[in-house]
Amino acid sequence: MQTHPTIKDGWFREISETSFPGQAFCLKVKRILHSEKSEFQDILVFESESYGNVLVLDGIVQCTERDEFAYQELISHIPLFSHPNPKRILVIGGGDGGVLREVVKHGDTIESVTLVEIDETVIKLSKKYLPNMAKGFDHEKVKVVLDDGFKFLKKVAQENNGKYDIIITDSSDPEGPAEAFFRKNYFELMYNALNDDGIVITQASENCWLNVDKLKDLKKICKQVFPIVEYGYVTIPSYTSGQLGLMCCSKKLQITEPIRKLSTAEESKLFKYYNSEIHKASFIHPTWAKKLIDGN
Amino acid sequence: MQTHPTIKDGWFREISETSFPGQAFCLKVKRILHSEKSEFQDILVFESESYGNVLVLDGIVQCTERDEFAYQELISHIPLFSHPNPKRILVIGGGDGGVLREVVKHGDTIESVTLVEIDETVIKLSKKYLPNMAKGFDHEKVKVVLDDGFKFLKKVAQENNGKYDIIITDSSDPEGPAEAFFRKNYFELMYNALNDDGIVITQASENCWLNVDKLKDLKKICKQVFPIVEYGYVTIPSYTSGQLGLMCCSKKLQITEPIRKLSTAEESKLFKYYNSEIHKASFIHPTWAKKLIDGN
Repeated sequence: MQTHPTIKDGWFREISETSFPGQAFCLKVKRILHSEKSEFQDILVFESESYGNVLVLDGIVQCTERDEFAYQELISHIPLFSHPNPKRILVIGGGDGGVLREVVKHGDTIESVTLVEIDETVIKLSKKYLPNMAKGFDHEKVKVVLDDGFKFLKKVAQENNGKYDIIITDSSDPEGPAEAFFRKNYFELMYNALNDDGIVITQASENCWLNVDKLKDLKKICKQVFPIVEYGYVTIPSYTSGQLGLMCCSKKLQITEPIRKLSTAEESKLFKYYNSEIHKASFIHPTWAKKLIDGN
Repeated sequence: MQTHPTIKDGWFREISETSFPGQAFCLKVKRILHSEKSEFQDILVFESESYGNVLVLDGIVQCTERDEFAYQELISHIPLFSHPNPKRILVIGGGDGGVLREVVKHGDTIESVTLVEIDETVIKLSKKYLPNMAKGFDHEKVKVVLDDGFKFLKKVAQENNGKYDIIITDSSDPEGPAEAFFRKNYFELMYNALNDDGIVITQASENCWLNVDKLKDLKKICKQVFPIVEYGYVTIPSYTSGQLGLMCCSKKLQITEPIRKLSTAEESKLFKYYNSEIHKASFIHPTWAKKLIDGN
């Protein structure tokens, strides 16, 4: 029988002494589906008792079949509905395919979606064990590049062959291969790869209940590069403390409310989490968090 | 050394096979401060590594010093700021004193706050181990009644000596002594104990990520008694899935936005979580949850 250091007595336990000491989210494991150390990270896929299949990278839950839609929808549709006609979309990371699945819901407005994933193993395993997410790869407008997102953006700058309207960084946390995605020069590379009304969104790794100083620092970095920076969040039970921060940067468009809106019926057909009201509410924060993140 | 069945290898684990099978929130334990079976329930108080002191009733976290303010503030200030002049407040449960601490922040408008707690042990232990919450008991306008909330409301109906503007049910979950607080006749008793513009708020035990059917059923019961019923929620890491539902019922006043507002500076001085914007945002839900809870 397969084992994994994060699983004991039939329970997976998410522990990080550096990021969230003293607390742990646990999921009961039915069976381990896959476990390996890829070239880049430790990968675990297991079938849970009540959250469907679960993808874990370097010990941290990346997605579960039960609640993945919350994060995938919000990180995709906040920038997409804030832009009047998003055509060229770049996804850095996102090897599970969930963001692709959401982006292509915008139909004819989308011309191309390029996904840059460093770890091919994540894509392969997602196609096998997370088919409802990986179906995003099947769309004709999707192009996959196996590369480091940072290096890819440097090449984009050199080649200068068309810029992006939206860049979505759907990475793992900074403790691992995604470390570079939380540095100022990464945001500068994204800025340069964007059209004049471009928008960037990135998972912030932290949330207001965890390390608010890190959120504040990330926002500060973003503000040095982008004129408009807003901190939003998504509620999702399988991420630490039940929510995850999203840092949104924009060259000139507002991002805290949608510029395009669907009818309630259309929203209800296309989305499980996203709607135009929750778009706005995702930027409303408790008093103490607002004060700290805004630096007042 | 003291032990408790929920603590193993130095970690407290919150498990419920009926309410949230297959998932568990864990807190690292520094030391057990108190453990007993009172007349009504199993009580555990421990010092955690990163959440301060923690009160656990029948295996379920009731509050931690680190994040209690979120729940205490929202369950108190949603009804209080929805009412133009709340004078007589009734708190059912709330033996930790946190709701009292929040209610009395409304100053001169408040004439009396009556707290009805069945388990005196909870009050005693909170005064010892959760002093920042239990300080709510010290206020001159607070009156404590040691009684079952259900029986107390029956007596109120018979005696008819003044009705309440707001009733806050800050109970434990239905699996235990609080079981009666989730039934229709409890809401009828509350309705009858309220003034004509009265408001009721009750912790809904569930949230949209857990058993939405139970939320829907609770809302249905409330709608049979009150003309206005709204489902809200508070984000809080130490409650299951990182959030808790709040069912709000009203005889005639709207409750999804504050009728009284403080300045940002005053809010920031008085509250860590509550502000007028988060009041409104607490009633905005993801698409699937809204559809199910509203029964559309």
